[in-house]
Amino acid sequence: MPAPLDGIKVLDFTRFQAGPTATVLLSDLGADIVKVEIPGQGDQGRYIHAVEGLSATPYFIAHDRGKRGITVDFRSPQGKEILLKIGAGCDVIVENFRPGYADKIGLGYEAFRARNEVIVYAAVSAYGEDGPLGNLTGFDIHGQAMGGIMSVAGDDGASYTAGAAIGDQLAGMTLASAVLGGLVARERQGHGQKVTVSLYGCQLALQSWEINQYALGGSLPPKAKTGHPQLHKTGMIWGSFPTKEGDVVLGGVGGARWQIFCELLGIDPGPDVDPRASFIRDKSAFIPAIRKGLLKRTADEWVRLFRDQDLMISKVNTYADVVDDPQAWANGYMIELEDPNGRKLPVVGSPFRFYANPVKPQGPPPELGQHTEEVLIECGFGWEEIASWRDQGII
Amino acid sequence: MPAPLDGIKVLDFTRFQAGPTATVLLSDLGADIVKVEIPGQGDQGRYIHAVEGLSATPYFIAHDRGKRGITVDFRSPQGKEILLKIGAGCDVIVENFRPGYADKIGLGYEAFRARNEVIVYAAVSAYGEDGPLGNLTGFDIHGQAMGGIMSVAGDDGASYTAGAAIGDQLAGMTLASAVLGGLVARERQGHGQKVTVSLYGCQLALQSWEINQYALGGSLPPKAKTGHPQLHKTGMIWGSFPTKEGDVVLGGVGGARWQIFCELLGIDPGPDVDPRASFIRDKSAFIPAIRKGLLKRTADEWVRLFRDQDLMISKVNTYADVVDDPQAWANGYMIELEDPNGRKLPVVGSPFRFYANPVKPQGPPPELGQHTEEVLIECGFGWEEIASWRDQGII
Repeated sequence: MPAPLDGIKVLDFTRFQAGPTATVLLSDLGADIVKVEIPGQGDQGRYIHAVEGLSATPYFIAHDRGKRGITVDFRSPQGKEILLKIGAGCDVIVENFRPGYADKIGLGYEAFRARNEVIVYAAVSAYGEDGPLGNLTGFDIHGQAMGGIMSVAGDDGASYTAGAAIGDQLAGMTLASAVLGGLVARERQGHGQKVTVSLYGCQLALQSWEINQYALGGSLPPKAKTGHPQLHKTGMIWGSFPTKEGDVVLGGVGGARWQIFCELLGIDPGPDVDPRASFIRDKSAFIPAIRKGLLKRTADEWVRLFRDQDLMISKVNTYADVVDDPQAWANGYMIELEDPNGRKLPVVGSPFRFYANPVKPQGPPPELGQHTEEVLIECGFGWEEIASWRDQGII
Repeated sequence: MPAPLDGIKVLDFTRFQAGPTATVLLSDLGADIVKVEIPGQGDQGRYIHAVEGLSATPYFIAHDRGKRGITVDFRSPQGKEILLKIGAGCDVIVENFRPGYADKIGLGYEAFRARNEVIVYAAVSAYGEDGPLGNLTGFDIHGQAMGGIMSVAGDDGASYTAGAAIGDQLAGMTLASAVLGGLVARERQGHGQKVTVSLYGCQLALQSWEINQYALGGSLPPKAKTGHPQLHKTGMIWGSFPTKEGDVVLGGVGGARWQIFCELLGIDPGPDVDPRASFIRDKSAFIPAIRKGLLKRTADEWVRLFRDQDLMISKVNTYADVVDDPQAWANGYMIELEDPNGRKLPVVGSPFRFYANPVKPQGPPPELGQHTEEVLIECGFGWEEIASWRDQGII
């Protein structure tokens, strides 16, 4: 069985994180991604936090593995011509330029559409192309700040981020959806189009409940701290707690399992209540006893004991716990990637599982310009012009 | 022009958040979502944090607007038969039951496939269906804890969440991608299949860079606090800062704009450096002066001044700022939804923009069982059997 996106060819102008994340997800689904970089320079992601002894940065591996790489100076007229011709044979174009830039340099949707009527052209911006901020650029942290999560993350006293670069990454993951949606429409309706998302818009989608709760309920939530900023009102046991060693999270304890839960912790369960009502009844009075009880064993011990009773619990994993977790490996969330020197690298894989089609990482990220000649030859260009473009610094 | 998913029919068994988020995104793209709930009971999302005077909770509006709703007791043999018949006419089934439960009650992939060879069957679990935790359930906070973000979010001293229910929501958004990928494969290759994601796997995908950085670089990051846990090493100015009123975020200041930036803040830019090197050079020595400078004006003033000079900056928005932001409304990230009483509600819309096909919210969430008769009649059932099932409590 071929991959789900077998035969789908993507011309990829993305750099840094939001754009490349979209195309790495499509690569795992089997698309042929041709990443375009400026000769002698390349995506800045190649240089963020290099690790000694590795031929690519962890950042570049995360966002650009499994792609083919070509160098073409898209700012030169000849370079542009080359890319329009490659694009004509592609199904999808993806970019994360500043809104308007691709059009300005003659590589926008209309330019590709003129050569290929059914092209799906996907772009991600900082704040959305319409509105007063439509032409601004912004990085990950601007998306997080604009979308409101920094007003609730962490504790009082400062504006904390969500903890990782979720502004860029979520936008990239959502851009992959937009591409797939565009492909469904093309396959079923026969037309191409431009599809877009933004860092800001994706942050709103990420918090649709919490933002609706304010918009319709009218009161701003407190900081989330170790739980959820709006679940605090329910009195549910929902948050992280220290143990003898390491932290655990509890969430949604109740129902028929409340008795077992209290028994394990050695606390008084209080009077019997209807199992369904028990789930959402105010349990804040129990919190001090739960805190005290949890200190008697380590996080690993509690996780084992609770899960044996089918109670929901998790350890607060560090990245070291994640990388070592058999569960992550069993599901392909962690994979081994062979680098160009034959070294096996433990890296994050795909979140998708397709039971009929294989979801399979296509290998390491390209070296700068590694597939330039291969792709140009495939596209019908000749060795002579290729050599001349190389001499002129166009490729 | 019809919607991108015009003609796609989805039978939706999801409840709470991760599953419903996937189908609400598909609804905005034009799919016909038929949500199944237990008669007299319904999705628990209908009851989380009700707001007085509203016919649906903000939670349920966020995750279930634009769907049709039917009540069928899928635990009864007759209910199951009804649902298999409805499913036979659908393109997609979506569920977020505990792994194995759908199969156990006779409503798993194989059961639907037996009636419809090309069905796309999508499911989201807590930790992935394979591996030692394959059959466990878990809520949002368990996904966040397992995936590592709680080890870096916030400040030292406790395990903080990311600030919102991103464990469930991200999994839902990614499940929508899986459905779309499954539909692309079906349209191009002619087969259906089961596709899945999990809360845990999506958290790893969300942090592919940060986890790779540990896996390949070998040292655990500090807490992210007001910035990024791994960008702290670059010396970039990346984080939130207090102003005279409100906080702002700066990220990636440098290049040719460093001089303007320092001028606006009234600080000494130091000796001239190459604009490209300037971007990533260690600027930690400037931080105290930047902090002091920012206190001279309000966040709104700084945002105006900086953006006038095309410098990247954002205010740390509260949800109130988001809900009032013209940028959010101009791009459809906030929309007005008319509730059954004709009241216009401000709620979060779709993160997608499709330039040829309309992306359009399909209305409020269904009342419990609102479309039961309509859907059963469409499916070819008769009024007499419908009346009898209603008498028996099956629908």
